[in-house]
Amino acid sequence: MKVRTGNAVKDYRTVWLEGRIVRMINQPLLPHFFRIASFAGHRQTAEAIRTMVVRGAPAIGAAGAFGIAQASLEFRGTDMKKFRAHMKNAEKTLSSTRPTAYDLFHGIKTVMVSIKKSKNVRDAQRTAMATANSYADWSATNCRLIGEYGGRLIKSGLGILTHCNAGALACVDHGTALAPIRWAHAHKKKIHVFVDETRPRCQGARLTAWELAMEGIPHSLIADNAAGHYMQRGEIGMVIVGADRIAANGDIANKIGTYEKAVVAKEHGIPFYAAAPSSTIDFSCKSGKGIPIEERPEEEVLYVSGKPDGPLSLGMVKVRIAPKQTHARNPAFDVTPAKYITGIITEKGVFRPPEIRRLKRK
Amino acid sequence: MKVRTGNAVKDYRTVWLEGRIVRMINQPLLPHFFRIASFAGHRQTAEAIRTMVVRGAPAIGAAGAFGIAQASLEFRGTDMKKFRAHMKNAEKTLSSTRPTAYDLFHGIKTVMVSIKKSKNVRDAQRTAMATANSYADWSATNCRLIGEYGGRLIKSGLGILTHCNAGALACVDHGTALAPIRWAHAHKKKIHVFVDETRPRCQGARLTAWELAMEGIPHSLIADNAAGHYMQRGEIGMVIVGADRIAANGDIANKIGTYEKAVVAKEHGIPFYAAAPSSTIDFSCKSGKGIPIEERPEEEVLYVSGKPDGPLSLGMVKVRIAPKQTHARNPAFDVTPAKYITGIITEKGVFRPPEIRRLKRK
Repeated sequence: MKVRTGNAVKDYRTVWLEGRIVRMINQPLLPHFFRIASFAGHRQTAEAIRTMVVRGAPAIGAAGAFGIAQASLEFRGTDMKKFRAHMKNAEKTLSSTRPTAYDLFHGIKTVMVSIKKSKNVRDAQRTAMATANSYADWSATNCRLIGEYGGRLIKSGLGILTHCNAGALACVDHGTALAPIRWAHAHKKKIHVFVDETRPRCQGARLTAWELAMEGIPHSLIADNAAGHYMQRGEIGMVIVGADRIAANGDIANKIGTYEKAVVAKEHGIPFYAAAPSSTIDFSCKSGKGIPIEERPEEEVLYVSGKPDGPLSLGMVKVRIAPKQTHARNPAFDVTPAKYITGIITEKGVFRPPEIRRLKRK
Repeated sequence: MKVRTGNAVKDYRTVWLEGRIVRMINQPLLPHFFRIASFAGHRQTAEAIRTMVVRGAPAIGAAGAFGIAQASLEFRGTDMKKFRAHMKNAEKTLSSTRPTAYDLFHGIKTVMVSIKKSKNVRDAQRTAMATANSYADWSATNCRLIGEYGGRLIKSGLGILTHCNAGALACVDHGTALAPIRWAHAHKKKIHVFVDETRPRCQGARLTAWELAMEGIPHSLIADNAAGHYMQRGEIGMVIVGADRIAANGDIANKIGTYEKAVVAKEHGIPFYAAAPSSTIDFSCKSGKGIPIEERPEEEVLYVSGKPDGPLSLGMVKVRIAPKQTHARNPAFDVTPAKYITGIITEKGVFRPPEIRRLKRK
């Protein structure tokens, strides 16, 4: 993805491995500060996933893959039995950070499976590193393809709503929901993106708006409450969101609020697409009812983080908006049943929800 | 309404007249600071309405009535012609503060009409004071009746969603949407209120949560995005909102986001009520299409106000959440067509939207 700092434009990925260090764009500081965070061990990488320094299903898939590769490098010695026990523990640590996204388990598992037949620790370490890197490359390529398949669906002149950040920052690169928007913009289609701010963590206001600004794609930030109004007024003609997990029947789990947008879009006959790599499909999960919904700390709703204006303001400030006696509930995701979804945009093409069965890995 | 400060519980109205002083609960400071603001002259009272120290249609109606009564007390002398000119000027000053609110003009007009036949200044002043006070009492009584009619609709064990603040703070007392909730709680019905935070101005998080906390009514603050999820899970069984204007066909204009909640509620067969005094119905307005939607400054979406924690934090801070290159759009209201509304709760009873024609003043 393009990042402009001053006059310089540089290309970045969201997460990568440099020697034994996992590096990530520090997302909680965006859009106010662009900083790279570094994590020296897999426990720190796990903590970074848990505290959402990196977030978004494909990105945490890659972070999980890098984290488990990093864990293999931490092992001292040659005893394969002890090595495997160490790796099992690291797998547990990394897997327990976020419950909803399927990609996290997929990224970790891919590396774990790759070292199953390794004969010695040295060999396993090399394989784990190579697998994690090719997992990230594969993930980025998938998003590029999603952009191409999805981009062809976008008509010039369209107002497009997106929710949360399913951009390059949520992936290794390109994005899922934002990949078709990037593609359409690059192919000179005239589009305007309505960006839901996406409370409580404001990933739309902070991250999606930042990515679109970096790319120079025309957009308007709106309160989550305003999307229905612009659908009613005919200014939004298409919705594209990401997906954290897709059940075998085509139900999707995605950022809280997705479900409301899908219902209102359907009420207006507005096409509603979910964009995600086919690895997001969990065929062991029959329907959305089987997807666990993460309940996050109430502080995310009770407070808002941002940056005060003015020269004296050097950092981020967290302000409380609610009374001290008030508690909040904070489900991070919701489930959108397949009947509200026009199509699922994957790296293998665009499918109606019932058609995704064809993608089942045999 | 009950206000607890320390161990004391005191009963307050949102706005009242004390001698020549108009007093108001200072709403922009809530829920962090409970302060009474005092305005010594009608010009200061007008400024308080304009800057939204008081907000909510019925509340600014009463503030307008008190402001014009206050203006009458400011007059020195006995010359009735000069007195009437002074009053005309004051009426203009107070009316120009909030151009869209019908109640404001209604409150001011009610006092102006009452002094039309006054023979001398002394008599006019006494009449203006008495009329303003009885206007506020009438307004509070209407809300109490809305509470009773609406409260009877609430079944024990129900989860109730409300959006924005249609509470006592938006009225003289009791509230519109919150009045039935207060009534149900006072009548020992077991209820739980889901409070939409209501971006961009967070009236739910700041004001509705504060009112419910003061009354000890069980509630959970949620991001606006989470309402659909709780409807889907069956935890929300009823929606009650206020209304800023009701068209003759039963369409309502209310805080942005109301429309989305109504569509999703209907999808789940969840009853959706709007609570408002019958004076909110604008029979000159045939349908919601005729209601102009106010577009407010983009800063309300780009920034959030709140109070940092800690002993050093003495005041409110405004933090920016979006990148500096990003612009926002900020419609303050949306229109919910009558077909999504189960009933309109007024001081004269509960009506299906087509039935409100019966309330037409002849």
